[in-house]
Amino acid sequence: MPDAPLIGSIEAGGTKFVCTVASGPDDVRDELRYPTTTPDETLARAIAFFQEQQATHGPLAALGIGSFGPIDCTEGSPTWGHVTSTPKPGWANTDFVARFREHFDVPIAWDTDVNAAALGEHVWGAARGLDTFVYLTVGTGIGGGGMSRGHLLHGLVHPEIGHIRPRRDPDRDPYEGCCPFHGDCLEGLASGTALNGRWGGNAADLPADHEAWDLEADYLAQGVVSLVLILSPQRVIMGGGVMKQPQVFPKLRARVRELLNGYVQSPALLEHIDGFIVPPELGDQAGMLGGVALAQQTLARE
Amino acid sequence: MPDAPLIGSIEAGGTKFVCTVASGPDDVRDELRYPTTTPDETLARAIAFFQEQQATHGPLAALGIGSFGPIDCTEGSPTWGHVTSTPKPGWANTDFVARFREHFDVPIAWDTDVNAAALGEHVWGAARGLDTFVYLTVGTGIGGGGMSRGHLLHGLVHPEIGHIRPRRDPDRDPYEGCCPFHGDCLEGLASGTALNGRWGGNAADLPADHEAWDLEADYLAQGVVSLVLILSPQRVIMGGGVMKQPQVFPKLRARVRELLNGYVQSPALLEHIDGFIVPPELGDQAGMLGGVALAQQTLARE
Repeated sequence: MPDAPLIGSIEAGGTKFVCTVASGPDDVRDELRYPTTTPDETLARAIAFFQEQQATHGPLAALGIGSFGPIDCTEGSPTWGHVTSTPKPGWANTDFVARFREHFDVPIAWDTDVNAAALGEHVWGAARGLDTFVYLTVGTGIGGGGMSRGHLLHGLVHPEIGHIRPRRDPDRDPYEGCCPFHGDCLEGLASGTALNGRWGGNAADLPADHEAWDLEADYLAQGVVSLVLILSPQRVIMGGGVMKQPQVFPKLRARVRELLNGYVQSPALLEHIDGFIVPPELGDQAGMLGGVALAQQTLARE
Repeated sequence: MPDAPLIGSIEAGGTKFVCTVASGPDDVRDELRYPTTTPDETLARAIAFFQEQQATHGPLAALGIGSFGPIDCTEGSPTWGHVTSTPKPGWANTDFVARFREHFDVPIAWDTDVNAAALGEHVWGAARGLDTFVYLTVGTGIGGGGMSRGHLLHGLVHPEIGHIRPRRDPDRDPYEGCCPFHGDCLEGLASGTALNGRWGGNAADLPADHEAWDLEADYLAQGVVSLVLILSPQRVIMGGGVMKQPQVFPKLRARVRELLNGYVQSPALLEHIDGFIVPPELGDQAGMLGGVALAQQTLARE
């Protein structure tokens, strides 16, 4: 898309921000990464970056923000554009979008970081041509976004897929989970934080045949099975640091098939599960490009 | 809607069929209920009924069918219109819609029984004005349908919400479940069949303060919590025979709040959960009127 509009994108994570100016995967002009600190400091750095970029590349057509949450992304809500009840110190009830409105007179698209990444994969990655799919990230925490019939998942608020509760056998896994709200929910049991907490130290250093990965695949498989039974996605895209352990994908796929036990009669599950549970094609760029896609979607609607 | 087109509706259940001619809730012309037997016999009775009805009321504008499943309702699929892998004897791979095409030269809408009921509630019942919601029925089995952002839930196939797996504490509940595919999935633990199997005899006769209902509410609450975290519905409508036990709704609502533990910050959950988890407004007519709504939706698109 040589004539695609130039977008300022923010992948606003709880630990780091990635600000980018791009029109798509083949036209990334510049990028700035920095740790998430206070809202004042963190948002001011993004604003300054985009102002400098405009001086170089000309005006941005829109901003696209995919944010850690929970956030308010309900159209027409008085607190649309806010980060809401996050436990992250200083960020609860931050009017994120308003800070940018003060400086940029362009449309601002706003969604969760995981819905943004899902949209990025839909436009340029592993979900091209699909209208119903899930994007799940398994990193420090676990989050999920996606589409049902061509629309990003929104409703009462937005999905919080990381907090569904898998079964845990305390004899096999005495670790009680690390989620401050739910203890042993999926995030509490299968996030990178949980892996490190359960096994001590950096779980990424555990050997590929360590039982940690069988347990991890079991928890993630339970999550995927719930997604399959509730949303009936055409594909489940799984990214994040934990999914870079190459032994996890095959174990996960095998366990999903075991748990479904042939009930859902689809060749995608019964014969081609390697193409059903896949890594993101955009890799670590899914979130950043997702912000670009969010903003371009908003421009297309205006 | 005085000028709404006259529809032939089939609520095709695994135990009984309900055939209706209607244009909406206030204009139900006639109805026929009979047990589900073989495909040949069962479908021939429906065809004969609609032929007689046409002789009385004039031509039907369309047929709307909400069927037990699993079914193929993927547009463009070569087996669209079939009941697929059902364990119900004789029904696997039945080309349901084709039988009607031979006799009726009108559009035929086809979806799951629970998506049909969900659409009925969307047009005339408890989901009016909502675009993202779930309809769950807890009867002989457990099934669910619904909408995300105005579209009925479809994807790889269709939801099979009854087969998600809640946690079960074998000390509290040694019953191992009655699902032939998954044992102690939600349907295996919390359907009417499971209630009767666990407690012996007809669970509907158990007193309202029997522990059966706390356990039932716990399992259903786990299911509702998974729905909230994955789909973020604006409302969850719960029908079916088990939900007619008046003690279940308050126990279920309380348990959903306990399990979510304040994580999803929405007044609908935190303050007004009585209006979030509700019975169907159409009661037992949701499925039948859902067939009418399905057909009218198809006509409106043509």
